[in-house]
Amino acid sequence: MARSVSTNIVKGFHRLVSLSAMWSIRHPIYSVSSRSPSVRSMAVLPLPFFKPRDFSLPNSTWGTEMMQLYDHYNSMCEVETADGEKQEGKWKRMPGYNRLLKYATGGVYLSKMMQSKARLFTRNIREPGAAFEYVLFINSEEQKCVGILQSGHLLEGPPGHVHGGAIATMIDTVTGCLASLSGSVMTANLNINYRSPIPLGTTVVMESCVEKLEGRKKFISCKVTSADGSKLHTEATALFLQISLNNLILGR
Amino acid sequence: MARSVSTNIVKGFHRLVSLSAMWSIRHPIYSVSSRSPSVRSMAVLPLPFFKPRDFSLPNSTWGTEMMQLYDHYNSMCEVETADGEKQEGKWKRMPGYNRLLKYATGGVYLSKMMQSKARLFTRNIREPGAAFEYVLFINSEEQKCVGILQSGHLLEGPPGHVHGGAIATMIDTVTGCLASLSGSVMTANLNINYRSPIPLGTTVVMESCVEKLEGRKKFISCKVTSADGSKLHTEATALFLQISLNNLILGR
Repeated sequence: MARSVSTNIVKGFHRLVSLSAMWSIRHPIYSVSSRSPSVRSMAVLPLPFFKPRDFSLPNSTWGTEMMQLYDHYNSMCEVETADGEKQEGKWKRMPGYNRLLKYATGGVYLSKMMQSKARLFTRNIREPGAAFEYVLFINSEEQKCVGILQSGHLLEGPPGHVHGGAIATMIDTVTGCLASLSGSVMTANLNINYRSPIPLGTTVVMESCVEKLEGRKKFISCKVTSADGSKLHTEATALFLQISLNNLILGR
Repeated sequence: MARSVSTNIVKGFHRLVSLSAMWSIRHPIYSVSSRSPSVRSMAVLPLPFFKPRDFSLPNSTWGTEMMQLYDHYNSMCEVETADGEKQEGKWKRMPGYNRLLKYATGGVYLSKMMQSKARLFTRNIREPGAAFEYVLFINSEEQKCVGILQSGHLLEGPPGHVHGGAIATMIDTVTGCLASLSGSVMTANLNINYRSPIPLGTTVVMESCVEKLEGRKKFISCKVTSADGSKLHTEATALFLQISLNNLILGR
């Protein structure tokens, strides 16, 4: 089936792949050879001719703290050499999209309706500022990932504060991004200690690092603090298991 | 300010309180005397003259498994005596709403815009079937809570499967409902073992029970299985701390 896909379609798909680095890492279905059965069957689904919205870029709802933290890490993504040339820095901003399944075969259980409508849980609301506004930065050399999160009014748990499940969701996202740098992974354990609630509308910093590697296991820690680092909101450990492509697709 | 509130408004509010049993338990702000400062200040915010939508009632998107499980637990909420009279059973269905903060002072940090727009994280999408379709049943006598969840296409994590954060969110919700039966609580710890991924669109059963009480601490376990109970998806423990009303309002 792949052979009937036009060159333009393939180009369009490859552009998406190169933009969604994080997801091509977490879900290697996007980076495998176009001769593989999984990519062949993707051709039956619509492919992107448009440039998808990158949710990790600033929008008008981002507050001062969110913007300052974004600028801080973004400035470390490109450095200037002694000759005045620009080079890649140690950090890399991870783009973020809300539609991936549409272009993949993952979910053999899914109806076509669901395949076409599925959205990433953390990016399932289009209204800017209403839910998770976040951006992830990766430092591969030091095996670190930092997430900056501004929580919107749709994330409420206790009145006026972020739901514990929304915090868990972002911890899974930040640690999962780091865990998947060297291949596809699935979350095996999340152990989360909630120290102080996060008020809705505020910005927090989520810092994660690799603690230990044991065969297929990756142990990662994560700390959630206020924007200025003065208040510890949440501490967590996460365990990820490296999995094969088949595990991911078939949900074993 | 409360004294200026008309009798009708107060009646309307009390109706909401009686309908939202779970939330009046979790957030005792709804059951305190109308002379308390927190309720006084609620009068500046709009009060409900309408009957809010109860999200825990079946809708057309609920599949066969979801309906069968709902009917099973719902049938145990009312029993017939030998005389043919109907009595309350051991189980109770917990109604579920998506707007609470609007009527409360929780969140001293919040702008008025955010106070009016805030929604419970698990009920923040109005489209039926798109995200969390769930209902909770409580058995106070046996200290158990059962959640029935049908996950929609907006909860995606790994392609075709439910996001680990969405599962964590529902575990927090089910265990939190049980923990809050005897007063307001906050989640202190969630420890979640993900055994097998949950395909999008399927229905799972979440069974939780109180394991131990130690002073202000409540230890609760939760098991997530497929609708027929044959497959274990997730196991978790949760620790909740009983808190005072001030803690809840001021986020301390």
